[in-house]
Amino acid sequence: MRLLLVNPNMSTAMTETMATIARDVVGPQHEIIARTADRGFPYIASRAEAQIAGGIVLEMIADNLSGIDAAIVAAFGDPGLRAARELFDLPVIGMAESALMSAAMLGERFSVVTFSPAMRRWYLDCVRDSGLMERCAGVRTPQDHPRNVADVGTALRAELVSLARSAVEQDDADVVVLGGAPLAGLAKEIAADVPAVVVDPITAAVAQAMAMVRIAPKQSFGLRRSKPLAKSSVGLSQALADVVRHEAQF
Amino acid sequence: MRLLLVNPNMSTAMTETMATIARDVVGPQHEIIARTADRGFPYIASRAEAQIAGGIVLEMIADNLSGIDAAIVAAFGDPGLRAARELFDLPVIGMAESALMSAAMLGERFSVVTFSPAMRRWYLDCVRDSGLMERCAGVRTPQDHPRNVADVGTALRAELVSLARSAVEQDDADVVVLGGAPLAGLAKEIAADVPAVVVDPITAAVAQAMAMVRIAPKQSFGLRRSKPLAKSSVGLSQALADVVRHEAQF
Amino acid sequence: MRLLLVNPNMSTAMTETMATIARDVVGPQHEIIARTADRGFPYIASRAEAQIAGGIVLEMIADNLSGIDAAIVAAFGDPGLRAARELFDLPVIGMAESALMSAAMLGERFSVVTFSPAMRRWYLDCVRDSGLMERCAGVRTPQDHPRNVADVGTALRAELVSLARSAVEQDDADVVVLGGAPLAGLAKEIAADVPAVVVDPITAAVAQAMAMVRIAPKQSFGLRRSKPLAKSSVGLSQALADVVRHEAQF
Amino acid sequence: MRLLLVNPNMSTAMTETMATIARDVVGPQHEIIARTADRGFPYIASRAEAQIAGGIVLEMIADNLSGIDAAIVAAFGDPGLRAARELFDLPVIGMAESALMSAAMLGERFSVVTFSPAMRRWYLDCVRDSGLMERCAGVRTPQDHPRNVADVGTALRAELVSLARSAVEQDDADVVVLGGAPLAGLAKEIAADVPAVVVDPITAAVAQAMAMVRIAPKQSFGLRRSKPLAKSSVGLSQALADVVRHEAQF
Amino acid sequence: MRLLLVNPNMSTAMTETMATIARDVVGPQHEIIARTADRGFPYIASRAEAQIAGGIVLEMIADNLSGIDAAIVAAFGDPGLRAARELFDLPVIGMAESALMSAAMLGERFSVVTFSPAMRRWYLDCVRDSGLMERCAGVRTPQDHPRNVADVGTALRAELVSLARSAVEQDDADVVVLGGAPLAGLAKEIAADVPAVVVDPITAAVAQAMAMVRIAPKQSFGLRRSKPLAKSSVGLSQALADVVRHEAQF
Amino acid sequence: MRLLLVNPNMSTAMTETMATIARDVVGPQHEIIARTADRGFPYIASRAEAQIAGGIVLEMIADNLSGIDAAIVAAFGDPGLRAARELFDLPVIGMAESALMSAAMLGERFSVVTFSPAMRRWYLDCVRDSGLMERCAGVRTPQDHPRNVADVGTALRAELVSLARSAVEQDDADVVVLGGAPLAGLAKEIAADVPAVVVDPITAAVAQAMAMVRIAPKQSFGLRRSKPLAKSSVGLSQALADVVRHEAQF
Repeated sequence: MRLLLVNPNMSTAMTETMATIARDVVGPQHEIIARTADRGFPYIASRAEAQIAGGIVLEMIADNLSGIDAAIVAAFGDPGLRAARELFDLPVIGMAESALMSAAMLGERFSVVTFSPAMRRWYLDCVRDSGLMERCAGVRTPQDHPRNVADVGTALRAELVSLARSAVEQDDADVVVLGGAPLAGLAKEIAADVPAVVVDPITAAVAQAMAMVRIAPKQSFGLRRSKPLAKSSVGLSQALADVVRHEAQF
Repeated sequence: MRLLLVNPNMSTAMTETMATIARDVVGPQHEIIARTADRGFPYIASRAEAQIAGGIVLEMIADNLSGIDAAIVAAFGDPGLRAARELFDLPVIGMAESALMSAAMLGERFSVVTFSPAMRRWYLDCVRDSGLMERCAGVRTPQDHPRNVADVGTALRAELVSLARSAVEQDDADVVVLGGAPLAGLAKEIAADVPAVVVDPITAAVAQAMAMVRIAPKQSFGLRRSKPLAKSSVGLSQALADVVRHEAQF
Repeated sequence: MRLLLVNPNMSTAMTETMATIARDVVGPQHEIIARTADRGFPYIASRAEAQIAGGIVLEMIADNLSGIDAAIVAAFGDPGLRAARELFDLPVIGMAESALMSAAMLGERFSVVTFSPAMRRWYLDCVRDSGLMERCAGVRTPQDHPRNVADVGTALRAELVSLARSAVEQDDADVVVLGGAPLAGLAKEIAADVPAVVVDPITAAVAQAMAMVRIAPKQSFGLRRSKPLAKSSVGLSQALADVVRHEAQF
Repeated sequence: MRLLLVNPNMSTAMTETMATIARDVVGPQHEIIARTADRGFPYIASRAEAQIAGGIVLEMIADNLSGIDAAIVAAFGDPGLRAARELFDLPVIGMAESALMSAAMLGERFSVVTFSPAMRRWYLDCVRDSGLMERCAGVRTPQDHPRNVADVGTALRAELVSLARSAVEQDDADVVVLGGAPLAGLAKEIAADVPAVVVDPITAAVAQAMAMVRIAPKQSFGLRRSKPLAKSSVGLSQALADVVRHEAQF
Repeated sequence: MRLLLVNPNMSTAMTETMATIARDVVGPQHEIIARTADRGFPYIASRAEAQIAGGIVLEMIADNLSGIDAAIVAAFGDPGLRAARELFDLPVIGMAESALMSAAMLGERFSVVTFSPAMRRWYLDCVRDSGLMERCAGVRTPQDHPRNVADVGTALRAELVSLARSAVEQDDADVVVLGGAPLAGLAKEIAADVPAVVVDPITAAVAQAMAMVRIAPKQSFGLRRSKPLAKSSVGLSQALADVVRHEAQF
Repeated sequence: MRLLLVNPNMSTAMTETMATIARDVVGPQHEIIARTADRGFPYIASRAEAQIAGGIVLEMIADNLSGIDAAIVAAFGDPGLRAARELFDLPVIGMAESALMSAAMLGERFSVVTFSPAMRRWYLDCVRDSGLMERCAGVRTPQDHPRNVADVGTALRAELVSLARSAVEQDDADVVVLGGAPLAGLAKEIAADVPAVVVDPITAAVAQAMAMVRIAPKQSFGLRRSKPLAKSSVGLSQALADVVRHEAQF
């Protein structure tokens, strides 16, 4: 399998961290192709930014379609997920959605724990969009926005453990999802300190991408009635315009 | 009042039709500034297209902010609405959302009638996003996609009246919203043939923009805690980048 | 436009305050006809009182139908709103519903702040009845019922600002609706102190009444299939009995 | 036990039919006190009529409180139910709500079958107000309004059986509620023809009134924190004004 | 009437307490047949235990069908309720469901108060399964699991009263259900200390069983289309296997 | 990985078919341990049967825990799933739940198509229990129950394709789940005939079991606060009693 991982945040360091985890999940038989956005925002944290980044995600996938079995949108919040799923003839996995769906199969109720109150609303929107609101026990965050997003996994580790414990003890969560790309890899480290199953979203996304490739018959995507009709466009990247015009070759 | 009307579809004819209706609604004391997208798609009809068009909407509003009291996203489906509302310090009105909210104040249950089955899912998503699903009696469309979107208001008039009647008689709708920019202005023409209140979305959007300017204290928008933090960006239009960086002057 | 404003609370002072705000919203070209209930309760604060007051609202509208373009039920809680909307052939606007719908177009999530815990449940019912529960971030009130309802806007001003701030900071509201007729006009005064858009319900009701007159084709109301059949009655006011019998002239 | 049955429809024939069934349910040890509205409408069939009739229900209960253990609002649609429940210190039972709650204890999913499409919306509102929408498989009615409401139980019997069968076979209902006072008593007659449990609402209301008297500790009602505060009023019947002023003796 | 009360907890003391209350509710004309599980668990407190106990409930009912008018599953949480209702041709009442439905007829919003945080999730599941989530104001419990389940009604009495008061004062409950078989009979004792209607689930279950026998036409159950088809089985008790094979005689 | 597949239906042929597909999904590196129920029912088709079969599932898992990485409940309808997930310290996958969650990651809306109207209600309950009702476009089945469940995949193939097409064309499904163990393996065969992604539940269950093993840190399950407390029991199999008493060794 060849899985495309597109990071719509303009951070190659973050991409590298996620790609390393991804490669660990798939093992040596399978390939991870990782790409970082070359425009947009250093770190997406609002709906407005996600609107723009979602368009960039479409271009990044279109540019790298060749030989790919599935694509992963590697930002919690899943910018462009539904658009990409509609447009491309292969499984498209969102980091948030796949973590939430996995959480819902590992326990009755899940919570999301993340590093900033600024993400709270967007992540709740993700839960709502996934359709799993009923299974969600809440989103817990620190009270203040961290100064530096890059090192929250270490700087806030004790507080994140404490938030996860509260999610379990006060909100009755069975499963805790550590939301946000900067927390990639933290789940394994804190698992022993949290009385619940802890989910790492990038691990979930990669494992779900593998599952979807196994589940979905390849030819089905091209046959989908709900695919948008072929259409001309102005101002899109060549590769994306070709996909939109149903003239992409892959 | 000066109201900005941005049409994310690349059709100046459609913009003209809507601007004419809008000017009729606001009267001579108020001004309509109408703009048409210069890139994107001839007619947005899918989530993928709306993802891209939503980014274009943000640029169109940023480019025309000067002296504006409110902005109208003039495409049923409201691409970019939530992003724009979050970002700009003034009321932003969506054609679909404002029509649905108005419908919900004109009767107990509303239906949407539109010209193509291809729009059905997207319009239902609009209802869901508005939060008014419970008040919605359904979306009715012809069975087949029309050959020519531009003239559906005349070519399909009899069928649209018949769909509206079914929405009333079989689905118990009190109000019928004629969804889709190509149906702009049709409501008035068929009102006498439909046993319900019929809503024209562009009329609703303009009337609601006027209402929001009256209701929302100007200074409130700049004070909003939920506004995204100032942020650098790469590859956005200058005006939009300035807004994102909190350095726009208007 | 001639807009009828009926206050089902037996307080002419409250009617005057609201009529003054209403006249300010519509401007000199349009007319506000304000009426105060001459029976019922000094201030409606329960479902039981609303049941009775709702019947009085129907009579007040029936008595003043002549030449009216729209009617406003000027009590937060909207007694009789759905009944009046069904019965009369013109737009009927509720102060609560119109404030909530407006709030939902000014931000993603709204809260209601009001002056007494006794109103909490009724106002939550209003949100539920409007269908907008999903968009609501909560209802916040002081812990105790005020001694004097008339002057809560001044006596409780600091506490109401504090509640509004909590709604924003703890409940993630983008918009705060100041519920209850005794708070009419307060929004403008406290807007600078609240990090959100603040909505005054009587302003919202009047602006929405104007919008509805612009949106709804006049003849539609008489054609509505969902209108109750003509019916005889005993014990109603003459004007209301005529409307119920489909013999009102206006 | 003494159960008060108030019929807000001005039909003593209907009251007699219902009282006979009620007396059969309670047996000779218990007493049914039946009252018919002396103003309002011959047969309530809309929200507007229910708004007015609900006020009359409050007066009818207040006038007959002495020595009563529970009150039954004997019109499907339950006009005034929530208001009465809030106001009076005893169990108040609605014919619709009690039938729906009973249906939900007799099977997984219930349907309502009634005699006129004009009742459909109101009865659906009842389901929604009860909170049991998820357990409801639908409301089925004939296509046309009957000429004569009084004899629908016999004139439409075959059609009602056919609707009930469709509710079972097509909508997967386990239980069918025969909604509307004119169908009182029909359930027993058609039970053998319907492959589901069939519920007669007046029987359900009376059986539930007996159950509530057994379940609810008498003194609890007077202690309720959610009871409206004592209040003066203008224009109410003496007995109702006394209840509202917390000066009723019973 | 002969009502079968099956206690799936292996505690004859608990069965005796409940049977005494039940006999008090039905009076001397009617009969209570009480049975205690002879296998399973001392006290069911999880979904896993309820899965197994639910099967035992089916056997207990099958073993005692002769001459019975209705069956009561006498454990809050209602193990096996939906299975039993589907299978047996008579009304089957759950202690939790019947208490919740009754609560919803005694006030607008109810809360559940119980003796251990370990029951919280299961009881919330009961509310969800009943369909009444919207009417529920919450589940309140002590912070810690009690050492001894048997005497919680006396040992925790003050705390339970305090929890009930919080449910009323902070969560706006009108009705409080005292969940869990070990609290049987407590409602009457604490009613004077709680400003709400307090519901005893075993009383509710018995009163509702009587109501259902009055409401449901006997022959209906055998006619139900939704009854499972006759089927062979291996390893079930003889009586249950006969019911499953549609060969039970009763 | 060693995955346990327990078939609660007493059909070794069905177990063999599913095990073959499962082995094909996991490949030669991983092991499938397949077990068939030796008591219960030939084919589970009702809630009553699922209640009993769910207890058997718990025993089957307890009996085969040694060296297992995850367990699959191999009957669409997932008898005992929630109980097993609560009880055992490893991932437990349901065939229905995993197929629905997968479907929700492969498209916006999914439908279930199955071979008998008798399964319709139970499968809808599965959707509801999963929390994904909002993403579900419906359950479609033939009108009549098939004579022979074993060969429905071939005997009804044309009808199932036609139902799947209707789910897509009339209900707007993007993904179709072929529900029911007798349809195992059919998805691949009919994929070319259905304009949507078609999901085989046993493939989904196995792929999801593999994903869960990758996602969930092993030690987490034993640490879960929501695990039932250790408890004595009577009448359970030795292995299950040990698990319940927290004395299982694996």
